[in-house]
Amino acid sequence: MMRGDRPIDQELDHLRERLLYMASLVERAISQALDSLVKPDVELARRTIEADREVDQLEVEIEEECIRLLALRQPLAGDLRFISRALKITTDLERIGDLAVNICERALELAEEPPLKPYIDIPRMAEMAQSMVRRALEAFVRKDVELALQVCRDDQVVDSLEEQVFRELLTFMIEDPRTVTRAMRISFVSKYLERIADHATNVAENVIYIVEAKDIRHGAYEEQAR
Amino acid sequence: MMRGDRPIDQELDHLRERLLYMASLVERAISQALDSLVKPDVELARRTIEADREVDQLEVEIEEECIRLLALRQPLAGDLRFISRALKITTDLERIGDLAVNICERALELAEEPPLKPYIDIPRMAEMAQSMVRRALEAFVRKDVELALQVCRDDQVVDSLEEQVFRELLTFMIEDPRTVTRAMRISFVSKYLERIADHATNVAENVIYIVEAKDIRHGAYEEQAR
Repeated sequence: MMRGDRPIDQELDHLRERLLYMASLVERAISQALDSLVKPDVELARRTIEADREVDQLEVEIEEECIRLLALRQPLAGDLRFISRALKITTDLERIGDLAVNICERALELAEEPPLKPYIDIPRMAEMAQSMVRRALEAFVRKDVELALQVCRDDQVVDSLEEQVFRELLTFMIEDPRTVTRAMRISFVSKYLERIADHATNVAENVIYIVEAKDIRHGAYEEQAR
Repeated sequence: MMRGDRPIDQELDHLRERLLYMASLVERAISQALDSLVKPDVELARRTIEADREVDQLEVEIEEECIRLLALRQPLAGDLRFISRALKITTDLERIGDLAVNICERALELAEEPPLKPYIDIPRMAEMAQSMVRRALEAFVRKDVELALQVCRDDQVVDSLEEQVFRELLTFMIEDPRTVTRAMRISFVSKYLERIADHATNVAENVIYIVEAKDIRHGAYEEQAR
């Protein structure tokens, strides 16, 4: 297929740009949410929560763009798959934005108490989740199956880190009940990061769908990923 | 618009039926997950986890049906909005199925330890979440805005219950460190139910979108809902 030959190509390029821009916003939200937690920085947490509005607005706009393309251009085959998946991806990106907000909310609560311990695994999880979001979107716009499979594999690493954080927090709580409230809030942050990684994985799985027109969701990809 | 006049009407009816059927499966999964937790019933938990495969399969099939309709029927206006939202609703239903599986996983872990206390708020949350799923789907297929707004309002009740459960579990953990592991697992169950209610709310918000062609997501509905 020659690029740029049809009127729809320009519109699809615009759609790709908007998705990448939306992804860049949620990536920044993840990184700011983590900074606001680790420093802690109450002002940054508040600003990051506020900035989520733009992400919400973008979801609505991108959806409208997808529906307009479906209605006016009546795309077929590959384009149809791409647009119908873009519609799903905006939902994943919007949820990632919400989860970054949830991290900020916990950061605000945790900032009012003395630190439990230095954060080690949580920043690692956050960096990984953030990079998964970026690569999943890159894989989607470039239709790069290899990169998408890499994201699916990373999800398993984030899951193990989450398990590890959970177990460590349990020992804190059992040894000293005064840590319970803080440890619970930190365990939620770790859960949020795990869910961000899940959403990035959803995005990546769409790539394999649009490229190979087959559905690797629901665990079927795991064999390939190993 | 006269129903049944156009070939697409029958196909849309079929799509509605499939969505309702998928919703009935996830409703049953929520109720069985709770039974497996409260009794506890390890066998039921395992069967419910196993049954999620059918939900996963349905998501794939309904998506294919939506994309086929978009491609072959080139629907306009109301039908286009309905199909593009159906595409999103299957994702919400599939995630609800996953969350029911997560409840079963916690139920299996909790079944190995003595009960912490009788479950009171969690079954209430589960009944509410289950009823929200049913009404959200009914509202969607019947295009019933009033019913959809009712679901959005109920979400606030589930959120308060979740808060209440969380605080109660904190006191358990602080008073007796031996309860920490169990209390954490129960708090996750309560989070899962809150997220099921969120997904039901997402479905309900789509109704207002397709009926009034405006977007009430991202908090804008709250004024209406009060």
